[in-house]
Amino acid sequence: MKRQLISSRGNQHFKHLKKLSESPRYRYEVQQTILDGIHLIESYAQRFGSPDSVALIQGSDINKISGYLNEDTQVLEFPAGLFSEIAPVMSPTGILASINIPHLDAPKKQNCILLLENIQDPGNLGSILRSASASGVDLVYLSDHCADLWSPKVLRGGQGAHFYLPCVENAVFSDITNTFEGKIFATELTGKSIFKENLKGPVAFIFGNEGSGLQSETISLTSHSIHIPMEMGIESLNVSAAVSICLYEKYRQENFSD
Amino acid sequence: MKRQLISSRGNQHFKHLKKLSESPRYRYEVQQTILDGIHLIESYAQRFGSPDSVALIQGSDINKISGYLNEDTQVLEFPAGLFSEIAPVMSPTGILASINIPHLDAPKKQNCILLLENIQDPGNLGSILRSASASGVDLVYLSDHCADLWSPKVLRGGQGAHFYLPCVENAVFSDITNTFEGKIFATELTGKSIFKENLKGPVAFIFGNEGSGLQSETISLTSHSIHIPMEMGIESLNVSAAVSICLYEKYRQENFSD
Repeated sequence: MKRQLISSRGNQHFKHLKKLSESPRYRYEVQQTILDGIHLIESYAQRFGSPDSVALIQGSDINKISGYLNEDTQVLEFPAGLFSEIAPVMSPTGILASINIPHLDAPKKQNCILLLENIQDPGNLGSILRSASASGVDLVYLSDHCADLWSPKVLRGGQGAHFYLPCVENAVFSDITNTFEGKIFATELTGKSIFKENLKGPVAFIFGNEGSGLQSETISLTSHSIHIPMEMGIESLNVSAAVSICLYEKYRQENFSD
Repeated sequence: MKRQLISSRGNQHFKHLKKLSESPRYRYEVQQTILDGIHLIESYAQRFGSPDSVALIQGSDINKISGYLNEDTQVLEFPAGLFSEIAPVMSPTGILASINIPHLDAPKKQNCILLLENIQDPGNLGSILRSASASGVDLVYLSDHCADLWSPKVLRGGQGAHFYLPCVENAVFSDITNTFEGKIFATELTGKSIFKENLKGPVAFIFGNEGSGLQSETISLTSHSIHIPMEMGIESLNVSAAVSICLYEKYRQENFSD
């Protein structure tokens, strides 16, 4: 690895990391993003090897991640003040990495896919991807008004899901549902209880925006309507909670029922 | 109702609402809090009647909520600039209400209780309460380092759950588990799959902090250890997702299985 101390805002590495942290457009142009914290960096490295560069507060212990780095990895040290300017979230962990955005191939056989329409809260999107990856979803499609998939906040919420779960951005849902050979579910108040529905075999779940739900033209793409039962006074669940319940009910039916 | 236009920061109503919005200590002292948006206000009013006061941007349409107000309700209009200073969240909806914090009695018979240790993200806590209320949890205990239950962000995440679900703050968990007559579950990697566990009958679930999980002395209070199965690469779920899956698995077993 190549160590370097950077103390100027004019430095090219500083400028690059700051733009990765702040600009979705720049991340898309250079096809890189930034990981915040040791857990995400480890998760990435276990799957893909060394990140492109690692950034630390000057004087930090490099040993905790040096096992993941190779001789070409740039190790960039910054004074604390400068580091805080590139740290993308509220509670910086003192270690960042820049990576090339990985492109995961979709499996040919798809038993469970997830379509997300306009999920705008980065924490919700990250949490959904985490549950999706954990429950064995094969592929996620995101509509064009979702939170930025590779933003530091969504990565943080995903806790490594991004590195295992293939995701397609800016998806046109009708193209997918027209060719998908399986049941296509959306949650609606008038739907059948999810616990009475057969979720085995190829299934697509479509979930909509936190406030406004699914657009009516998207509902028309579905073949089945399901509902998570709720007690009096509560009309809906947080979208990440609802997704997690549906995905794990499918998982349960396929792995833990007769 | 009594309408009043307020254009001074020195006004007592302005100062009161601003402090309710910003100060957990003040909310606790006066036992009031602030609701943001028509949905929360409607949810409160359907359960408890008129809020104490309603605050609007000057010129806003009062008709959408006037059915919930009575002759004593203060209706306070503010110029947009002043209103934005009391609006507690990033995307103010243009309508707020101050309410007396309701105190809900715990049911005597408790079939499902939830113990939350140091859940610090307001969005997570709100989402957990929403799933808990929807799935019929009888009572929630919060440890003393949880996010502030009656803060505007937690209320927003709860979407009305606060008005149906009895919650006890600053709870000492050992006092509860010592007298609870039922299984006491925590999630651990080494636990039995939740889909193989019998969750019928009186059950307590304990969940811990987003980053550090449960403290070891809290784990020692449990009688059973369970685990949500996860595919390769993912070690844990978002806490709100995990809570929702566990609560709804209990709900399913009690309502949709033999």
